[in-house]
Amino acid sequence: MNGAESLVTTLVDAGVDVCFTNPGTSEMQFVAALDRVEGMRGVLALFEGVVTGAADGYARMTGKPACTLLHLGPGLANGLANLHNARRARTPIVNIVGEHATYHRLLDAPLASDIEGFARPVSGWIRTSESAAQVAQDATEAVAAAVKPPGQVATLILPADTAWMEADGAAKPLPLPTPASTHAEAVKAAAHALLSGEPAVMLLNGRVLTARILELASRIANKTGAQIFADTFISHVERGAGRVEIARLPYFAEQATETLANYRHLILVATQSPVSFFAYPDTPSRLAPEACESVTLVPEEGDIEDALEQLAARLEALNTEPTLTSSARPALPSGELNATTVAQAVGALMPEGAIISDEAATSGFALPAATVGAPPHDWLSLTGGAIGQGMPVATGAAVACPDRRVINLEADGSGMYTVQSLWTQAREGLDVTTVIFANRKYAILQIELLRVGAHNPGPKAMDLLDLSRPNLDWVELAKGMGVPASRPTTAEEFNDAFARSLTEPGPYLIEVVI
Amino acid sequence: MNGAESLVTTLVDAGVDVCFTNPGTSEMQFVAALDRVEGMRGVLALFEGVVTGAADGYARMTGKPACTLLHLGPGLANGLANLHNARRARTPIVNIVGEHATYHRLLDAPLASDIEGFARPVSGWIRTSESAAQVAQDATEAVAAAVKPPGQVATLILPADTAWMEADGAAKPLPLPTPASTHAEAVKAAAHALLSGEPAVMLLNGRVLTARILELASRIANKTGAQIFADTFISHVERGAGRVEIARLPYFAEQATETLANYRHLILVATQSPVSFFAYPDTPSRLAPEACESVTLVPEEGDIEDALEQLAARLEALNTEPTLTSSARPALPSGELNATTVAQAVGALMPEGAIISDEAATSGFALPAATVGAPPHDWLSLTGGAIGQGMPVATGAAVACPDRRVINLEADGSGMYTVQSLWTQAREGLDVTTVIFANRKYAILQIELLRVGAHNPGPKAMDLLDLSRPNLDWVELAKGMGVPASRPTTAEEFNDAFARSLTEPGPYLIEVVI
Repeated sequence: MNGAESLVTTLVDAGVDVCFTNPGTSEMQFVAALDRVEGMRGVLALFEGVVTGAADGYARMTGKPACTLLHLGPGLANGLANLHNARRARTPIVNIVGEHATYHRLLDAPLASDIEGFARPVSGWIRTSESAAQVAQDATEAVAAAVKPPGQVATLILPADTAWMEADGAAKPLPLPTPASTHAEAVKAAAHALLSGEPAVMLLNGRVLTARILELASRIANKTGAQIFADTFISHVERGAGRVEIARLPYFAEQATETLANYRHLILVATQSPVSFFAYPDTPSRLAPEACESVTLVPEEGDIEDALEQLAARLEALNTEPTLTSSARPALPSGELNATTVAQAVGALMPEGAIISDEAATSGFALPAATVGAPPHDWLSLTGGAIGQGMPVATGAAVACPDRRVINLEADGSGMYTVQSLWTQAREGLDVTTVIFANRKYAILQIELLRVGAHNPGPKAMDLLDLSRPNLDWVELAKGMGVPASRPTTAEEFNDAFARSLTEPGPYLIEVVI
Repeated sequence: MNGAESLVTTLVDAGVDVCFTNPGTSEMQFVAALDRVEGMRGVLALFEGVVTGAADGYARMTGKPACTLLHLGPGLANGLANLHNARRARTPIVNIVGEHATYHRLLDAPLASDIEGFARPVSGWIRTSESAAQVAQDATEAVAAAVKPPGQVATLILPADTAWMEADGAAKPLPLPTPASTHAEAVKAAAHALLSGEPAVMLLNGRVLTARILELASRIANKTGAQIFADTFISHVERGAGRVEIARLPYFAEQATETLANYRHLILVATQSPVSFFAYPDTPSRLAPEACESVTLVPEEGDIEDALEQLAARLEALNTEPTLTSSARPALPSGELNATTVAQAVGALMPEGAIISDEAATSGFALPAATVGAPPHDWLSLTGGAIGQGMPVATGAAVACPDRRVINLEADGSGMYTVQSLWTQAREGLDVTTVIFANRKYAILQIELLRVGAHNPGPKAMDLLDLSRPNLDWVELAKGMGVPASRPTTAEEFNDAFARSLTEPGPYLIEVVI
């Protein structure tokens, strides 16, 4: 058994059995080991941004990490933006990066670079294996590091000779780390704030806002009169009919500030006191008023459900009725095809158990209301603001959940960042319906240009925010990567194409020009 | 004048007048400044790997830097692989990265990351501006750092408030740094080695192997009986009829070792003693024999032409005849369309002054011989081994040289990394002919898999090196981004399509299935 085989065996034994990859020469031993060791599925992507985003989507849906396999510093570099998003989503990923052989590293060959340097800003754990004998132990520690609550990117760097030299065997899985226990003092302080008689708000985040977590939060809110919000950017929320719908803090700083203006108590659930996404001239970055006192009920590495249960118990809210969403779908739209009618069609037709990968950006304004009463589903969002996450996350989620339909609601500008995802969807026959909102501009930037004080923008500025010269043809792009596609022009045509895509196996893309 | 305007004015005054970009909110002031300050051209790309690769291609052809404008850590991260290549090419780039406002940086907003950490492995110079008043001085120092011989990536990080706050004005350009002077001792030592009577070889690299540099090297070789080689990976070489053709060291370690086996003296010209691209089991990484003594004639920051002139003078070789390539083109091919007949057609038809961006990888074996006798042209190559360089470099070269035809010879696997380049080519109406060699596999990895000792690869391994499930359709991909395209099936059809593309303005793509 060589080092690569000891690595793959260790990973499989620890339950890590999917590898998203674009390998190179230094990773060939790992690739060869996939046939010698049972149980690891390799999924090829044509670009590493797809690899890392798919590993994120996979772990968001399974709760367990996939591994990546990346080629040296540049392969890692290409995957960093989606590792940044994964870091913000608290997603466990075993991020494996090949390296030159130990004795070759210092010779400054053309592909040599500071791999640990590239990895550091996105990784909660980094290690470079220095011998074949060490690889198995490093791998099992990498898995344990990745799943350490709340979840993080664990980067394991493997010099090529540690893969081809003889190893001693696999390492055993380490015990699953458990979340930090709930502090009674924190529960008491949160209860005190909620019972103060002053306006209070609970702000939630965490790796998954499960139906159970949201139900507990709603019981507490209904018992105490507090409001509940989620952060603007959350990784994964369980929603739909029969579940609790949670509003998100608005994206724009002044709206968020206004939303929070009257609260005197802020109960933080696996998050920090909220700050604006960007800074703007003459606008405060902190969104909560100065007079608002913060209490952290549970840190992000804690047991969120347990903390809310203890808080609910203390408040005698365990039997308070939560506010559950009624089952209600919009009518199938007709007439003009636009962002609103697309949202209505999605709400009207999405199946139970659908997984939504949402990177619709400014075109997504109508989606929450149109889908809230649809059958129970999972909603995955952009977390770290690095665009190009939606299509890879959809790809990984579809690998994770082959029996469920993935619906990727995607802005055109963001989609072009990792458009290569479509090929992996075709290759793996993944059940992903992609809806491209083609507004043919970076619409958010046209708004932000004014908000940062750049008034009266000129033609050169506006041209850099415009995607219509030339127009992208998403139907051709999809077909070029083996994904069937269409461009409906009315709501009725969209309804038909969307409904058909939900029942036919494999990927499908619908371009909506808005 | 705000900080952004002082920045753009300073850059334009220093001769940096092209900005390749994909901006975000934190860069909107820079974008707005493009209309308020005369003289800076903004070129939009749909992905930052295109931005940085285009900046590389632009500077390779003009000798002066372009600037980039990237959005925070993730925007920089997406551009790192081609900055790695630019670093290896010694290309001057003023790499501008937006950052959160100074007071917003530490609040851990979703897009916050360690930008300097991401930048460090690729940058020879890094600075974060801390006030609007400082931006202009930082910018002029960034330009000076970028062009410091031999050339490097200078990363300037701009917090958003340093762009929108009032600044004092622009800063003056700094004097152009000059290369290190030639050391008489080095010239003497090189001459001594060349006159030793023992077999000697000169190995060349540098930012541009100009016709003049190669002519001097050839005179020296012909005078002394030495051999001359270039490194396997070189940034830019001037070649064609009437110029000196230089062979490159072979890519595979054992071939390179054999090539160098009998030499006793190695004269290094702006390079280091050669090492293999990758390590392989039981194969030495150093390519020159132990008995071979190295002499560095000129370091990479030196004046290569001057050093060769001094060496030639010392050897009385200034009037020795160099070996110049005769004008000779292959006949137009007919019949089967394959990598060889494509090379023949390129050699037969490429116009004088063509710029070749070569990322043909394993499909490019026939190109050097088929094009060596074509009219004088420039050849740009992959430098750092990070694939996805060819299409962006072609894009930047075409921006740099609007009166010349760019021919991008591109492998399909590499092309998919930065396929978004085609849209920028269409948008800017760039005269780029792209030839895709669609062998539908990572052919180099099928070879490397065996060379690293992974014999009898199984189906899972081979599947990860295969691009035929599904086949990419490059004609659809190109059309999806506004670039006309075709897929000839015979040599005659290729000849026609290629010749037509050379005379029609704007980009064109030809897919060759081989």
